[in-house]
Amino acid sequence: MSELRQDPTTQEWVIIAAERSKRPQDFVRPADRIEKPPYKESCPFCRGNEHLTPHESLAYRSGGPADSSGWWVRVVPNRFPALSSGGSLQRQELGFFRRMDGVGVHEVVVESPLHNELLPLMDERQVEEILLAYRERYLALRDDRRIKLVMIFKNHGQAAGTSLEHTHSQIVGTVVVPSDVRRRLDEAARHYDDHGSCVYCDLIQEELSSGKRIVMDTECFVVLHPFASRSPFETWIIPKDHQASFGLISMEDSKRFAKTLRATLAKLHTKLADPDFNYVIRTAPTRDEEEDYYHWHLQIVPRLTTVAGFEMGSGMYINVSFPEETAQFLRE
Amino acid sequence: MSELRQDPTTQEWVIIAAERSKRPQDFVRPADRIEKPPYKESCPFCRGNEHLTPHESLAYRSGGPADSSGWWVRVVPNRFPALSSGGSLQRQELGFFRRMDGVGVHEVVVESPLHNELLPLMDERQVEEILLAYRERYLALRDDRRIKLVMIFKNHGQAAGTSLEHTHSQIVGTVVVPSDVRRRLDEAARHYDDHGSCVYCDLIQEELSSGKRIVMDTECFVVLHPFASRSPFETWIIPKDHQASFGLISMEDSKRFAKTLRATLAKLHTKLADPDFNYVIRTAPTRDEEEDYYHWHLQIVPRLTTVAGFEMGSGMYINVSFPEETAQFLRE
Repeated sequence: MSELRQDPTTQEWVIIAAERSKRPQDFVRPADRIEKPPYKESCPFCRGNEHLTPHESLAYRSGGPADSSGWWVRVVPNRFPALSSGGSLQRQELGFFRRMDGVGVHEVVVESPLHNELLPLMDERQVEEILLAYRERYLALRDDRRIKLVMIFKNHGQAAGTSLEHTHSQIVGTVVVPSDVRRRLDEAARHYDDHGSCVYCDLIQEELSSGKRIVMDTECFVVLHPFASRSPFETWIIPKDHQASFGLISMEDSKRFAKTLRATLAKLHTKLADPDFNYVIRTAPTRDEEEDYYHWHLQIVPRLTTVAGFEMGSGMYINVSFPEETAQFLRE
Repeated sequence: MSELRQDPTTQEWVIIAAERSKRPQDFVRPADRIEKPPYKESCPFCRGNEHLTPHESLAYRSGGPADSSGWWVRVVPNRFPALSSGGSLQRQELGFFRRMDGVGVHEVVVESPLHNELLPLMDERQVEEILLAYRERYLALRDDRRIKLVMIFKNHGQAAGTSLEHTHSQIVGTVVVPSDVRRRLDEAARHYDDHGSCVYCDLIQEELSSGKRIVMDTECFVVLHPFASRSPFETWIIPKDHQASFGLISMEDSKRFAKTLRATLAKLHTKLADPDFNYVIRTAPTRDEEEDYYHWHLQIVPRLTTVAGFEMGSGMYINVSFPEETAQFLRE
C-alpha cells in the first residue's frame, strides 16, 4: 500500500510508492563519467577565454583589469539570456492573448577557472567565494527596483539540463513574482496566521526532535530529506535562524553556509557516484525580505528518476523511495 | 529579446527564449532506436504471457475465457500500483505532518498484443478500440463513488519515463482532486464568470481564425500548438463541441477522436523521427462532468528538452521554440 504525504510548506500531496520502492543504493549512478581536461579552447568559461563572454558583472581576482584572467570566481551576463534588461514592462493584449517583453536579468556564475572542477569536491574556501559572489550579485540586482525576485540555481549534468559542462550556476532576476513562488508564500503566510509561527522554523524543530530524516545537523544549518520528498534524495538545507531572504545573510553565515553546502554535495557525490542534480535557493521576493512567515532555504534535487505523464497531468509526484531510508543512507 | 506569453487557460506565464531558439528541424531525433521483436518471453504484456499480469479488468477478444490470449486490447491492474483500492480514506495527523493511505485505482491499457507495435503507426481501427477501452474503463471507475478524478495518460520512450517498452497507456483514479487540476478548473470558472463563455471554446475560435498555430482542423477536433507552449511541439487536441468530461464522449465521437489522435501522433512520429512523448487526457473531475466552464482535451508533450533549475525554482517554463514555427513545420 502506497502512502500519501502532505508537504506542510506547500500543502501539496506526494505519493510514496511502496510497491515500486527502491533501496537507496539502487540509485547509485553507473560509472559512465568521462574525464574532462582542465582547459578547453572552445569553452567560454575557461581561464584565458574571457573574451568569449560578455563583459563581466563581477570577478574576484588579485589585481589586473576586468575581463583579464587571474580570477577565481567570475560572473558574466548569459550570452543566450532567457530574460534581458531592455524592453517594456507593459503587458500587451493581442486580442484573446497576452504577452510582454522578456525583461529581467540572466547571469552566469563561473565557479572555477578550471574546466574539470566539481563543486562538491572543491576547497571550502572556493565554495565560500562562490556564495559571496551569489550574495554580492543578489544585492546588486535587487537595487534595480524593477526586479521582484532574484533566483539563484545550478544545473549539474545532462539529466539536469546543463548545456555547458564547465562548472557554473545561474542568477535570474524577474520583474514578476512567478505564481508558484507566490503560492509558497501564501501557504507560509496561512500557517503563520494559523499558528503564529514560521512553518519552516516549526519544521526544523519537528525534524530535529525526530531525527529520522536528518542528514546533517550543524551549528547554523539543518540538512534533511523532507517528509513529502517529491523525488529520491531530495535534500533541503535550512538556516536555523529565521530569515526570509538569502540576500540578508551575513558574511559569517554565508561562510558557514558554504561549509554545509559543500559537505552536503560531497555526501551526495560520494554516495551516489556524482549524480546529476539541480539546486535552487528558495528565497523571498525582494519586497518580502523581512517577513516573519517565510524562511529561505536551498533545495537540491538529484535527477535520478524521470517525471512522466502522471505528474504532468496531476501535478502530484510519485516518489519511489522513503526519505527516512535515503537520509539514513547518507548519514551512515 | 525573449517574450513572455500567458496561457489563457491557466494564467501561467511562459518564456519564449528567442536568443536560444532553435529551428523546428533541430528537434528531429537522431536515429538510435533499436528494432524490437514482435514477442518477448519476459514481457507481461505480450500475447501468450497473460499469466504474468493480475486478472484483467477488461479485454476485447473474439471469444475465449478471461486472461486467455486472442485479445486485441487488454486492461489489467498495474502490478506495481501507485495507488490501490484497499486502505482508509481517513487522513492521519502524525504530529506536525499529515499522511493518508494511497487509495485509488491504477490500471494499464495494453494497446496491442504485439511487442513491437507503436501507437502512431497502428491501424485506425486499433486506435479506435484503445479509445473505446479508455472510455469503458472511465465509466466503470467513476461508478466507484470514492473516485474523484480519472486520469488517462501515456508515457512513450525512456525520456518520457517508461519502464516497459511494450506499447501501453495508464489509467489512474484518485480519491482527491489534485490541487493542480483544481487550479485549472478555478481558472476556467473565473473566465466563465468574466465572459459568460468557456475559455477553451473561445480559444478554439481565436486559433481557427488566426490559423497560425493550427496543426490540423478536422470535422470535430482542432489540433494546435498553444500560444504559451511550455516546450517545443507541445500539442493539444480539443473537441470542437463543448464537453467538460472525456467520459461523456459518444461512441461516434470516440471513433473520430481516434482518427485525429492517430493522425497527430503519426505527424509527430514522422516529422521528429519517433520522439519520446507523454500525453494526458485533461478531463473534469467526476463531480464536474457537466460544467459549462471546463472543456476536456488531450495534451501531448514530446520530451525534446530537459526541465532544469529555473523551472524547478519558479514553476515558469522556458521554451526554445515558437509554436507558430513548430505548427507550420507539422502542417507542411
